[in-house]
Amino acid sequence: MSTRSVKASSILVVGSVALDSVETAKGRVERALGGSSVYLSLSAVNFAPVSVVGVVGEDFPGEHRRLLEKRGVDISGLKTLPGKTFHWQGSYTRDFRSAITKKTELNVFEKFRPELSDAECRADILFLANIDPELQLNVLSQMRRPRLVACDTMNFWIERKRPQLLKLLKKVDFIFVNEDEARQLTGEHSLILAGQNMLRLGPRAVLIKKGDYGASLFACGKMAGLCAYPVRDVVDTTGAGDTFGGGFMGYIANSRRPHDFEELKKAMAWGTVMSSFKVEAFSVKRLASLKRPEIMRRWKEYISLVTVRS
Amino acid sequence: MSTRSVKASSILVVGSVALDSVETAKGRVERALGGSSVYLSLSAVNFAPVSVVGVVGEDFPGEHRRLLEKRGVDISGLKTLPGKTFHWQGSYTRDFRSAITKKTELNVFEKFRPELSDAECRADILFLANIDPELQLNVLSQMRRPRLVACDTMNFWIERKRPQLLKLLKKVDFIFVNEDEARQLTGEHSLILAGQNMLRLGPRAVLIKKGDYGASLFACGKMAGLCAYPVRDVVDTTGAGDTFGGGFMGYIANSRRPHDFEELKKAMAWGTVMSSFKVEAFSVKRLASLKRPEIMRRWKEYISLVTVRS
Repeated sequence: MSTRSVKASSILVVGSVALDSVETAKGRVERALGGSSVYLSLSAVNFAPVSVVGVVGEDFPGEHRRLLEKRGVDISGLKTLPGKTFHWQGSYTRDFRSAITKKTELNVFEKFRPELSDAECRADILFLANIDPELQLNVLSQMRRPRLVACDTMNFWIERKRPQLLKLLKKVDFIFVNEDEARQLTGEHSLILAGQNMLRLGPRAVLIKKGDYGASLFACGKMAGLCAYPVRDVVDTTGAGDTFGGGFMGYIANSRRPHDFEELKKAMAWGTVMSSFKVEAFSVKRLASLKRPEIMRRWKEYISLVTVRS
Repeated sequence: MSTRSVKASSILVVGSVALDSVETAKGRVERALGGSSVYLSLSAVNFAPVSVVGVVGEDFPGEHRRLLEKRGVDISGLKTLPGKTFHWQGSYTRDFRSAITKKTELNVFEKFRPELSDAECRADILFLANIDPELQLNVLSQMRRPRLVACDTMNFWIERKRPQLLKLLKKVDFIFVNEDEARQLTGEHSLILAGQNMLRLGPRAVLIKKGDYGASLFACGKMAGLCAYPVRDVVDTTGAGDTFGGGFMGYIANSRRPHDFEELKKAMAWGTVMSSFKVEAFSVKRLASLKRPEIMRRWKEYISLVTVRS
């Protein structure tokens, strides 16, 4: 199942909404729409109803709001505070393996203290994007009975807020990390051992994102791996991991067996397909105009590429 | 099809037979059996009849000969010359991503001028392992009408013998390279472009080996990727690429449509499975005792891990 259905669970995304100035070998953009919540929601909304809780400054362009709304994302939980929107400035090495941060201006994001509305508390699925684990715990405590909880994190929190992060991990179903974060979190160099050890920290499934090398899934005592979709012209990888997470959770929002290994593997494939669109253009440009037939076409192509007839 | 059948085409492997002194985070071995021909043949012989043409010195232990023969490899083309066997000494970084060469003693391998017997000239399939492209061309010219020709190479030849290598590539069906070699050969950083460009150099299929990230196939105007089998305890990756090539060609030796994209993808999966055994132990230890049921069990497990039910 790939298309948004009336029966799909609702997804609440809590994380950053940002303006990104990005430079890559393929060009640059200034203060373009970005942030983990934006990528997650623009990806997941192709599969399920999505609401975003976040904060922006007074400089946040109305066109960005309209874009999110046009794509079906509920942004009634996106607050405007006096001041400027979170701004990230950075560049990528030619192979897109490393991001070099030039500037991180938190601005109003520094004061982000999410307070969920009654409707938001009742969401079926909660995605805690990469924010302070204390805030993630606080948001989780405001929820009524989420059917599923997923989280992301980053090196900064693993180093500075490890106890809070470990407390959170006991309460989540899925965790999304990249290779370095998996190693840092567990102290294990081998990704297989790192993935297995992360399962012992609480989550029922661990997703390790490896960029153009694909992704790995650890769950149900098993491991699976999928290569990335071969994107011919990678332009900007900002938000690719969040777009992966959005596709993953979007598929899972439609699943009756969200802890089944085969379902998780399929969710990983959907995440892979969605993130392949993201990297084809700067910012949200490709996701903003994505049409269902394109998604289905790429899904079929991707599945045919990774399928080995046994 | 996975098991050696009477109808399988015969494979002739021409390359190095060596004694390797290897150190990894998991231990070390001194002058253990190695060399591209050895890994290729011990892998392919599980699928098809294999003969090796190579050279060793007077120090080459009889037990190594007996092992190859016991596994069914025809070593009547393995000559002994006065002097010592090719000896490689090196170590691997903890993540096995880089090999550090401490010593390369070519010894008798320096005088390697393969002369094929009548029977060898009539082999159905020729695998030109990593040797001087001039020798590869010379061997190829001795063959009658091989149904399929595959080759491997390395950075040294790409740099020093590019014209000869390019001449060879016009005459081969399959080429096996790692990521760096693909980039060096084409001058393209993107592996997708590098793979596509290599197809234009002559081969009908290009295999790019990425270690524990898996492998990519370029053929028939398409690209496919497979992740590696998740080996829990990697001990020594020496020869993993050759073992991959052996599994690949072994499967292809049984195929009636060796240029069909689905068949090539399946061959890539067999190569992946075979190389997963190799890395579990030093030298050829794991391959030397490998039993058919183990191979079949891992094949089934691997296919189930990479299969997404669409």
